Amino acid sequence: MPALDYPPPIQRLIAQLRSLPGLGPRSAERLALWLMQVGPLRVDPLARSLGLLHDTVRACDECGFFIEKDADCLLCTNERRNARLICVVEQAADVLRLERSGAFQGMYHVLGGKLSPLDNVTPEDLRIDSLMQRVQSLQAEEVILAVGSDVEGEATASYIADGLSGLGVSVTRLAQGMPAGGALDHVDELTLFQALHGRRKIG
Amino acid sequence: MPALDYPPPIQRLIAQLRSLPGLGPRSAERLALWLMQVGPLRVDPLARSLGLLHDTVRACDECGFFIEKDADCLLCTNERRNARLICVVEQAADVLRLERSGAFQGMYHVLGGKLSPLDNVTPEDLRIDSLMQRVQSLQAEEVILAVGSDVEGEATASYIADGLSGLGVSVTRLAQGMPAGGALDHVDELTLFQALHGRRKIG
Repeated sequence: MPALDYPPPIQRLIAQLRSLPGLGPRSAERLALWLMQVGPLRVDPLARSLGLLHDTVRACDECGFFIEKDADCLLCTNERRNARLICVVEQAADVLRLERSGAFQGMYHVLGGKLSPLDNVTPEDLRIDSLMQRVQSLQAEEVILAVGSDVEGEATASYIADGLSGLGVSVTRLAQGMPAGGALDHVDELTLFQALHGRRKIG
Repeated sequence: MPALDYPPPIQRLIAQLRSLPGLGPRSAERLALWLMQVGPLRVDPLARSLGLLHDTVRACDECGFFIEKDADCLLCTNERRNARLICVVEQAADVLRLERSGAFQGMYHVLGGKLSPLDNVTPEDLRIDSLMQRVQSLQAEEVILAVGSDVEGEATASYIADGLSGLGVSVTRLAQGMPAGGALDHVDELTLFQALHGRRKIG
């Protein structure tokens, strides 16, 4: 007799949950059992949302942020935004963070990740070609590379800066330094180095 | 103009994912964006598994372990198992763990949790009444309380032991002591205390 296991539908669900980012084997099992326990009234709405997700939402062909299937992109079609200024970010979530800061009124371009040879992410996997085309069609004056300042982010920024050279566009990077409200003993040495290096004259 | 946010279907999915155990606001958002990025070929099978879960699987009315909707319980209907011996566990996952140990050949009874006043889990929320009925209908000789040895587990064990007193059944608890292969510097003081207290004569 084979070893006892969960019924196949639960085994299948555990395997699928385990393939989601951030869920290990134990948390996938715990989540599946929790879903069994809470009953269909809690599970069915989630199943429906997932099933409808790609039928109701898509990425904007221009900026890569998400929009409802038949809607216009609120960012790309907003004429009060400066179309000569393009801010390049890794993820759609970064667009929301920058919008909440209120500091940017230009166009966005979501790459969909960052270059990472270890994870097999090459330039072809990112929306870099479409960025080059957009820079030209929008006649952009400045491209702000708001990608992360980790190793992969820096590599991605260099790669894009190389590609943009010769297009007559100014390429910038976010300032690096002390976080707002941060004390010296809360930041790492590299951040301190960069904050010192980029110091501003105030008097 | 309202602040920019994800389209409603994504907002809804994030809210639903956030209500799952073990997922905070940030991991729910990250997971939703990942699901958008991987496309329907990865998401739709998960949506189907979730939607079918409660149509294809149910908990056995007797032991509480999961079985396919129209199938008999492999545990309760197995005549080679000792029906006079009932092992009480918190979760269905505990049944699998005990089965894999190969140390138990009796019946199981899944409580569905443990008593926890802070989380509003009362005796009525657990399968305790059905345990009392089963002890009598199976004419059980021993009930092994294999619930956890944390505070809530101990409270649950005491509560059940009280309820079983007078039914003429022997009530036992799992042994506590050193884990297999464990060195003294890897276990906490309470475990050491209990291991010392329950020491066995071997020579």
